[in-house]
Amino acid sequence: MAGIIVKPRSRIFHGHDWVYASEIRKTFGNPQAGDVISMKDFRDRPLGTAIYNPNSQIVARRFSRRKQKLDLEFFTRRIGQAIEYRKSAGLDPELARIVWSESDALPGIVVDRYGDHLVLQTLTLAMYNVREVIVEALVEQLAPKSIILRNDAPSLIAEGIPQEVALVHGENPGQFIIEANGIKFEIDLLDGQKTGLYLDQLDAHAAIAKYAKGKRVLDCFCNQGGFALACAKAGAASVTAVDVSESAIAQCQRNAELNGVEINAIAHNAFDYLKNCEETFDIIILDPPSFTKNKKTLSNAMRGYKEIHLRGIKLLEQGGILSTYCCSHHATRELFLKNIVDASVDAKRSLRLIQTHGQRLDHPVIPAIPETEYLKGFTLQQMPSR
Amino acid sequence: MAGIIVKPRSRIFHGHDWVYASEIRKTFGNPQAGDVISMKDFRDRPLGTAIYNPNSQIVARRFSRRKQKLDLEFFTRRIGQAIEYRKSAGLDPELARIVWSESDALPGIVVDRYGDHLVLQTLTLAMYNVREVIVEALVEQLAPKSIILRNDAPSLIAEGIPQEVALVHGENPGQFIIEANGIKFEIDLLDGQKTGLYLDQLDAHAAIAKYAKGKRVLDCFCNQGGFALACAKAGAASVTAVDVSESAIAQCQRNAELNGVEINAIAHNAFDYLKNCEETFDIIILDPPSFTKNKKTLSNAMRGYKEIHLRGIKLLEQGGILSTYCCSHHATRELFLKNIVDASVDAKRSLRLIQTHGQRLDHPVIPAIPETEYLKGFTLQQMPSR
Repeated sequence: MAGIIVKPRSRIFHGHDWVYASEIRKTFGNPQAGDVISMKDFRDRPLGTAIYNPNSQIVARRFSRRKQKLDLEFFTRRIGQAIEYRKSAGLDPELARIVWSESDALPGIVVDRYGDHLVLQTLTLAMYNVREVIVEALVEQLAPKSIILRNDAPSLIAEGIPQEVALVHGENPGQFIIEANGIKFEIDLLDGQKTGLYLDQLDAHAAIAKYAKGKRVLDCFCNQGGFALACAKAGAASVTAVDVSESAIAQCQRNAELNGVEINAIAHNAFDYLKNCEETFDIIILDPPSFTKNKKTLSNAMRGYKEIHLRGIKLLEQGGILSTYCCSHHATRELFLKNIVDASVDAKRSLRLIQTHGQRLDHPVIPAIPETEYLKGFTLQQMPSR
Repeated sequence: MAGIIVKPRSRIFHGHDWVYASEIRKTFGNPQAGDVISMKDFRDRPLGTAIYNPNSQIVARRFSRRKQKLDLEFFTRRIGQAIEYRKSAGLDPELARIVWSESDALPGIVVDRYGDHLVLQTLTLAMYNVREVIVEALVEQLAPKSIILRNDAPSLIAEGIPQEVALVHGENPGQFIIEANGIKFEIDLLDGQKTGLYLDQLDAHAAIAKYAKGKRVLDCFCNQGGFALACAKAGAASVTAVDVSESAIAQCQRNAELNGVEINAIAHNAFDYLKNCEETFDIIILDPPSFTKNKKTLSNAMRGYKEIHLRGIKLLEQGGILSTYCCSHHATRELFLKNIVDASVDAKRSLRLIQTHGQRLDHPVIPAIPETEYLKGFTLQQMPSR
């Protein structure tokens, strides 16, 4: 088997599973993009088995500390372990991300389950190459009515994987309704503009809804309306939801009707909305898409957060609640919290932290692989002036 | 009124309420230790009212952004706000820290409520000087049967406050029983070796108990047995509790009897216990006292954590759970989590993060005053070997 020799002091020796180009001392046996390779340290001791792609920034991703093939037995075992963990964590296994890449030692494979239907992503070349075996393992474990391959992430291009959305097992379920936290959502896994849900935020939706009864709520960057619907259902006095995407707002409105609640859904740039808004609110939710995918654009991203935090805080009623989220791994918890504090100082308001949020347990954090932790959220309450 | 001029770029301009000696440009009007002073910036603009003690590292602590006296009206209002917040946060106001110093804009005042009885600490000289007014305000707000002044913290010496434990209102309740999370604890607020409970950890006790049914549990640094009792009550197969203090172990045993559960309570140095232990466990809790009170001793402290993490991880059964806590503000979340990862790499085990913990909401975190955040905990699960 072809492979690589990893330099001393590389992250793989600190519990990580990734190898960057700069960490490779040399290759042997002429490994090709998409190959399964063996990894060794500079003293020729084995480090396990990895998938290889020199066109990716992360050249090798270890999936086993032993010798291991990417065969049906392997995928069945790993997927079984991933499902078992989610059950033990008390998650509803019918509505969850049941495989999440590195966190489940299946680098590049993401599987979301919506009842009888699965959405599969293969984000690494080696895993893409064996997608039929993965589908077979999923069918064996879960007997789904359909599996949709949803390979439309921009990162696929660098990996050399064709962008493709296709039915790879069973029949297209078309548009259907699923229920999460007692709220109905209309989804279309194959043809929808917005497919599926943000499963990682389902706990946060429920957490904020607990504060919502009788309150005036503003949900910025609302997407299909996860927070807005949860707050409306919990008895908010009014709910305004803002997103720049017309299709997201249309979806949010359909979901509101489906649940028999009223949401004032507005297709508008959320920055501008916050700037020009003349109302105040008891609860403001800021859950924007990631403003940065890398370290280079981090300071621009932080300016963006600062702006929405400042505007959001100014629109808060006395005693009001701000719930704000950041889904970029690069903005650390400390940096993000400091950003909120700086905005509150500029706005001359004092805030108390009342809840800390992270990604749901179906997106497990492996602390030895820090990149698996990306979502951080803070819910803060404006304090009486002192 | 005497006062101080604060240098530009001091933390007070970033939302903090503290002024260190190095941040003072000059004093005016000859302020004395224990005085209430006014604070100004270098352009003579008012920054609010503070308490002053040049013998403390923190020379001034702001308690109001306005002109304000330390009178009955002030304490009644602030204590009222503090109680109101705890109610709104869903805490049982009968068993909670109802005033927590800077977090409640009452620097140096700590009040714990155990039903009809209050424990008061006055940790700053100015607040100590007006303790009778504070007691009056507490009586007005809560009509307690007793208030114990429990001024025995080592930090009092530097503040110039006499160490003293005394009944300052009502009658000594003696030894009595309180119930938290459905578990009975015997406490003695005036004469006990261990007074009161660690209220900041009550949520964590309940969180870990959820995993405990049928499991073999080890609670290291157990104190009165908060985690051990919660796990035993939740149906653990066995519970071992270790603490170096004989009196803590005796208390833990009495609490076990009181609750009709069995705990193997061992008076032993927890480091040595972990080193020599030949059993394995399904759940291991590490909740040591702070290994460091300042930045200087941080690296020693981290070595201590590394040691208990390494030993704890080695004693974990396959799939077992480690729940570990750090109550020092100086060890950041990142540093503490990295310490756990390093230990797991040395122990050749992989861990998944399944819960993050912080101090209970009756110890509110004010992000603009980072020192108000001190408690961090992680619950991790050993993953199947890969």
